[in-house]
Amino acid sequence: MKHFLSTDDIDSLPEWLKKGRTLAPGSGTPEQPGLGKTLCLLFFNNSLRTRLSTQKAARLLGLEVLVMNFGAEGWNLELEDGTIMDGGAAEHIAEAAAVVGQYADLIGVRAFAGLSDRTLDSAEGILHGFVKYAGVPILNMESATGHPLQALADALTIAETTKKTTPKVVLSWAPHPRALPQAVPNSFVRIMQRMPVDLVITHPKGYGLDANLVGAYEPVYDQKKALDGADYVYVKNWSSVQEYGRVLNRDPGWMMTAEKLGEAQFMHCLPVRRNMVVEDAVLDGPQSLVLKQAANRTLSAQLALTHLLDVQ
Amino acid sequence: MKHFLSTDDIDSLPEWLKKGRTLAPGSGTPEQPGLGKTLCLLFFNNSLRTRLSTQKAARLLGLEVLVMNFGAEGWNLELEDGTIMDGGAAEHIAEAAAVVGQYADLIGVRAFAGLSDRTLDSAEGILHGFVKYAGVPILNMESATGHPLQALADALTIAETTKKTTPKVVLSWAPHPRALPQAVPNSFVRIMQRMPVDLVITHPKGYGLDANLVGAYEPVYDQKKALDGADYVYVKNWSSVQEYGRVLNRDPGWMMTAEKLGEAQFMHCLPVRRNMVVEDAVLDGPQSLVLKQAANRTLSAQLALTHLLDVQ
Amino acid sequence: MKHFLSTDDIDSLPEWLKKGRTLAPGSGTPEQPGLGKTLCLLFFNNSLRTRLSTQKAARLLGLEVLVMNFGAEGWNLELEDGTIMDGGAAEHIAEAAAVVGQYADLIGVRAFAGLSDRTLDSAEGILHGFVKYAGVPILNMESATGHPLQALADALTIAETTKKTTPKVVLSWAPHPRALPQAVPNSFVRIMQRMPVDLVITHPKGYGLDANLVGAYEPVYDQKKALDGADYVYVKNWSSVQEYGRVLNRDPGWMMTAEKLGEAQFMHCLPVRRNMVVEDAVLDGPQSLVLKQAANRTLSAQLALTHLLDVQ
Repeated sequence: MKHFLSTDDIDSLPEWLKKGRTLAPGSGTPEQPGLGKTLCLLFFNNSLRTRLSTQKAARLLGLEVLVMNFGAEGWNLELEDGTIMDGGAAEHIAEAAAVVGQYADLIGVRAFAGLSDRTLDSAEGILHGFVKYAGVPILNMESATGHPLQALADALTIAETTKKTTPKVVLSWAPHPRALPQAVPNSFVRIMQRMPVDLVITHPKGYGLDANLVGAYEPVYDQKKALDGADYVYVKNWSSVQEYGRVLNRDPGWMMTAEKLGEAQFMHCLPVRRNMVVEDAVLDGPQSLVLKQAANRTLSAQLALTHLLDVQ
Repeated sequence: MKHFLSTDDIDSLPEWLKKGRTLAPGSGTPEQPGLGKTLCLLFFNNSLRTRLSTQKAARLLGLEVLVMNFGAEGWNLELEDGTIMDGGAAEHIAEAAAVVGQYADLIGVRAFAGLSDRTLDSAEGILHGFVKYAGVPILNMESATGHPLQALADALTIAETTKKTTPKVVLSWAPHPRALPQAVPNSFVRIMQRMPVDLVITHPKGYGLDANLVGAYEPVYDQKKALDGADYVYVKNWSSVQEYGRVLNRDPGWMMTAEKLGEAQFMHCLPVRRNMVVEDAVLDGPQSLVLKQAANRTLSAQLALTHLLDVQ
Repeated sequence: MKHFLSTDDIDSLPEWLKKGRTLAPGSGTPEQPGLGKTLCLLFFNNSLRTRLSTQKAARLLGLEVLVMNFGAEGWNLELEDGTIMDGGAAEHIAEAAAVVGQYADLIGVRAFAGLSDRTLDSAEGILHGFVKYAGVPILNMESATGHPLQALADALTIAETTKKTTPKVVLSWAPHPRALPQAVPNSFVRIMQRMPVDLVITHPKGYGLDANLVGAYEPVYDQKKALDGADYVYVKNWSSVQEYGRVLNRDPGWMMTAEKLGEAQFMHCLPVRRNMVVEDAVLDGPQSLVLKQAANRTLSAQLALTHLLDVQ
């Protein structure tokens, strides 16, 4: 069964990017392969862009959409097998997923990392529980370790705007007051590795990404050096993988500024903390691509859903 | 005015069960008697199956659907008449219900028992308040004392799977860490009394169901004896009616096991606590009907909504 | 760009009122100028009537609707410019609004007064932030200082029911246990000033409305005198403007009674606290227009949305 769990589920990235352009607003009447089918979106975590863009994309494809905030409107799920369920979890994911699969032809799941137990987060209990038990295709709307809809929107944004055959793309860590997951940088690195780009990753020591997820890479600890000659600078905070989920560094020297950005175009998945992650001048300037990235979330959701609907 | 408040609102159960089969997925293009009409679903309590299956059913019938979590998205309602509303309730149900009736052609209401005051719960203040004031047909999506959509799905499940003219159906109480309402067993017993089945009810002493709701019955306190020769075993916890809302018994000896189940088919309305109410081997085995029951929730909602839409 | 932020955005009130009558249920097949477009409703505060009637109106116009409870399903927004966002706000309204504008053709915003800082509330940070950054028309679903959809529904109600060319309309303050915003009375006064009515405003000393918002007016402190010969009595509590957000008076003598009402018709925007703001006999009697007001909320939303969709 097809799923869209990671960027690896994109069979041919060049074809997806090409098709993405044909879906842009104003490109003619869209096909509606979703007519008569139902997509259920399950949010285990809060969401703005994903919530709205995925619904928008689904309706454009003709899908009926059911939205549920699982924690607030439902109850806690048990993920472990074999336990005596006498605690806080009212239902096992085996039943919950299989039941939702009775009502929906496709299921979208958003479930973040807890950031306290690396093994637990890596297991992607909720996402993989739905894959295992739901019996229908699953759409990853950001999981503990990946955010492929965002990565695909980012790839669409670069493909759409680049003036070079092989632009230099820099992923640059930034400080943040809270501990954040690594889902976005993981998926961004993965998809960039399949793009005709020169990818450079810069972050402080102790912030290396998980090689099991993104492959081995040579980090550049000198941000200035990394940014030299950049065409795109993707800024993002994440918490430490090695000292799992901890904030080791809040050095404002890592914040992105107009001066550091130079001639490059600025990217961020949003939400972004102004003057902490990036200064106002960058976000408010003409080199910011953040709104185009957000707009492309509708296209990436259309692409992923179309892929899942395409059952021959 | 027609309502769907209890299984008593099913005029002819055999006809409903027969019609239910014609609605199953793949049975051809459904009629859409709801086109141009609006159903508003009001949740005073959390919900998974009811939330999704009722929306699904409504859209299949062509209804527009408005969903509202009344407590979280609205405010507390006053149910008493004549009070000075200077406390926590911002609106009287008289206005709230009549207002929703201005926007919706049908209203679904889910409002559980509080389990602290039996007289209050029996009065079904919220459900009956909507019946009294809304001016449109009301659909019971589980109230303090009944869950007729679940019972109808259960009846559909037995009708669809039975190989006998008069199968033996056993309702068997099970332990649970928390105090649960009696809505599901009440409605299950009521609908089984109208089915060609041999119904046996087994529970510990102190757990007798309300005779005003289900009629007088002879409980079997010996679970083993009750289960002998069963074709269907419906397992469910409920709290005491006599010592209202209290948990009197957590004896794990009442849990359903594969050994006890024998050749019978297993039923539960879900959510279910594994290895507390029923052991894994039963839920994961081929005799479990729980997913079919859940799938039939869409059919029971279609039947009830079609009934409410059928105004001649 | 067109917006619907206050009753001032109604270009010709007589024409809107006339058109409103043609939209009433049963007036023939409605036009669907919203087909192929999306309305996103953002709730920063709870809502019953506005939530349901605006969705209903939008679907009648053919709009797709996305609903989001911004606080519960998203996160806090930063409204200040130039701050270092190291606190509780995860996203600046500049990005949030612009992003929603990527997915929606129209945005509805509900954001109440905080009632602790008059200057802050007057600035209407959230509403005006969306106007400034979203890039699409904004619909005010009740802001800190105004509730134009309610005022328009009230005007429709008076226009539909009056038997006089110039009825006497009295806005009468009422006691309430909690501090409430002035949004409803502000907009009601503004729209009544454009209607062929004789408007009288009565409230205790200390409860004068903001002259910057409603213009200078001569309050009548003697409720009995104000009510003399009234055709419509609009009852509403609000907190003090001068001692901002404070409850100065809970005198039950200001409650509306059947005796005080006399022959007049009773109006209230709801929710209303019975026997605190108005006695049961009034709400339950034949002179109450509250349900007609609520029903007219669908019409006022249809009018406002049609206005915003009409881009030539």
